[in-house]
Amino acid sequence: MTALRRAVVLLSGGMDSATCLAEAVGTGRHVHALTVVYGQRHAREIASARALVRHFRVPRHTILALPLSQLVRSSLTDAGRALPSGGSRGGRIPSTYVPARNTVLLALALAAAETDGAREIYIGANAIDYSGYPDCRPAFLQAFERMAQRGTRAGAEGGARFRIRAPLLRLSKEQIVRRGERWGVPWKLTWSCYAGGRRPCGTCDACRLRAKGFRAAGRVDPAL
Amino acid sequence: MTALRRAVVLLSGGMDSATCLAEAVGTGRHVHALTVVYGQRHAREIASARALVRHFRVPRHTILALPLSQLVRSSLTDAGRALPSGGSRGGRIPSTYVPARNTVLLALALAAAETDGAREIYIGANAIDYSGYPDCRPAFLQAFERMAQRGTRAGAEGGARFRIRAPLLRLSKEQIVRRGERWGVPWKLTWSCYAGGRRPCGTCDACRLRAKGFRAAGRVDPAL
Repeated sequence: MTALRRAVVLLSGGMDSATCLAEAVGTGRHVHALTVVYGQRHAREIASARALVRHFRVPRHTILALPLSQLVRSSLTDAGRALPSGGSRGGRIPSTYVPARNTVLLALALAAAETDGAREIYIGANAIDYSGYPDCRPAFLQAFERMAQRGTRAGAEGGARFRIRAPLLRLSKEQIVRRGERWGVPWKLTWSCYAGGRRPCGTCDACRLRAKGFRAAGRVDPAL
Repeated sequence: MTALRRAVVLLSGGMDSATCLAEAVGTGRHVHALTVVYGQRHAREIASARALVRHFRVPRHTILALPLSQLVRSSLTDAGRALPSGGSRGGRIPSTYVPARNTVLLALALAAAETDGAREIYIGANAIDYSGYPDCRPAFLQAFERMAQRGTRAGAEGGARFRIRAPLLRLSKEQIVRRGERWGVPWKLTWSCYAGGRRPCGTCDACRLRAKGFRAAGRVDPAL
């Protein structure tokens, strides 16, 4: 009998990270869920993250407050900027891009993983529907893995490599809906909307992508 | 006439980061100093960082609170663990190593740099006197640069590369003292002690390294 494999799962409370969590738990990982609260708008997601952790009986959940808005400007962290609703046009990077966001999130997850003795970090990065975000691309995740190996005691002293698991990287939103269903994600508990009100706004890019995914998969979104 | 080059300088308040700050300012960079407060023991350093920023008339200083002790265990972040005073023995990594610390610090600096339009990040990493720390090695810093290029909008859209400037990387503490003097570092304002009391303890590894540097350079430490 082998010990459970430890993993750190970045959990925002959205449908992508919920699917990652479900997959990590479903494949027998001993999970430390990490929710980094870095923007004003996504505070609503914390409740979703907590609910998902309860649902999947995750043994450890850290909610880390990071005042990233002191450093970066983005329509996701700045209450004064309008949220985009027109989608990603002509390959341009949308204003919801938060500078170096996934680098920061993965760095924090790496600190947790090295402390826990975990070698896997799950992130719900997606290169299809978020093709405009440079830090959702395979080349970035590979570069992060190499850097992690050099910048940690665990890496320097040999042993198993750190792995960034991004199981949704090449999936469409429709495929994510199907995959999440397979792992039993309770969609009702997830939150995608950028606006963060009591109900999803239905018009921001995140709401539109989510609706597209459910529609294409022939499902009704139970969170609506 | 060219515009001032923007740079983000990681500033802990110790002698190494103070020397980096002095060099960045002295070579005409427009500096954003970033002090990340992540441990209990180093709270004393914040006052030093502020004093250095005033001394060098740095246009912008961000002090960012990061509750890293929620994630990592280290004698630097955990008040309950003894601080080492025996130096780095036989190539072992000391207990003051904070898992993935420089990855986290550089990731935050990268977020600031991309936001500011800066392409340079200064860090006081040192591979000689801190040879036990994997995240103070050249191979790590190079891997971080490559990752930064792939994980940012600035990198993805081309243009100048992000550069991690670690001017002290291959210097001994003696050489750092000489270099800092050349750039006019007011040593009296810097703080090195791990213990963080009102006066340096004189016995922790940081105090001993500092004393060794001043002694070898034939100088008296004005902070004592």
